[in-house]
Amino acid sequence: MSEVMTPDAAKAIIGASPFLGQLVTMLRAQDTYGSWDGKSDAEVLMPYIVDKAARKLIPIIDDPDPDVLWRVELFYNAAGLAIERKTGIIAAPMIKINHEGFGRATLVVGRLIAYSKYHRDIHRFGFDSLQALAEGGDRIVDEAAALIGRFPDVANFG
Amino acid sequence: MSEVMTPDAAKAIIGASPFLGQLVTMLRAQDTYGSWDGKSDAEVLMPYIVDKAARKLIPIIDDPDPDVLWRVELFYNAAGLAIERKTGIIAAPMIKINHEGFGRATLVVGRLIAYSKYHRDIHRFGFDSLQALAEGGDRIVDEAAALIGRFPDVANFG
Repeated sequence: MSEVMTPDAAKAIIGASPFLGQLVTMLRAQDTYGSWDGKSDAEVLMPYIVDKAARKLIPIIDDPDPDVLWRVELFYNAAGLAIERKTGIIAAPMIKINHEGFGRATLVVGRLIAYSKYHRDIHRFGFDSLQALAEGGDRIVDEAAALIGRFPDVANFG
Repeated sequence: MSEVMTPDAAKAIIGASPFLGQLVTMLRAQDTYGSWDGKSDAEVLMPYIVDKAARKLIPIIDDPDPDVLWRVELFYNAAGLAIERKTGIIAAPMIKINHEGFGRATLVVGRLIAYSKYHRDIHRFGFDSLQALAEGGDRIVDEAAALIGRFPDVANFG
């Protein structure tokens, strides 16, 4: 992590973020053998924290690491669930990233693309700090919820 | 092909279908060495005609043939272009099909999913006849155009 953070400070950030709550739940759900039982939530989230210095060390020549793609999937899955918590309608991620690490991630609600982002250099996917991760995820949830509120007919279509 | 068709009958079907016109153009654009110059439009479209008997012969155990995935891409690209011809707004295909041949194909216009279809057994993608191919494609274009007309704010968003 890029900064030294007390466990209490980390807990406060996680507790305040609806998105992070879902992300921790999603991550722990993958841990079928309970090997993370001794880890704190902040530790489970650690792989998402990639600060500038760490980012520079990740090569972007090769194909993206499958672990990164898995983290991206879970990131958007968690955002989709947090959107459901907020709006009552589920948002399904539709992510298409090519082997060069370029692509698009969307959150789809009915016939509405509630959120859309073009990614490049997905190899280096990550956030500067736990706070930045929380803000990034919560911003997606808020943006999507606002668009669902604006176009309810499209979100509820079909 | 499933039935014997005169070249004139094929030409009439292709001429009457805005979708098929685009599909032929797209296919010919891939033929950078001109090896299809001697082929009629109907012949160029032939790989899309997979009748029931032919379909049964295609195994669905293995990964889908890359040629099939390429044909699916071009199919939806052509639909996207035909939608642009009709509505003035381009529709971008976003296709995600897994290695088992299951997945979803969408046509995206702004923030609107103008068309969405779940595919399975993509290995066997094809149509019973040239007429069925024309109708299938034109139906997608009409459906998407209708939805764009209904939700113009979403289609023009961003």
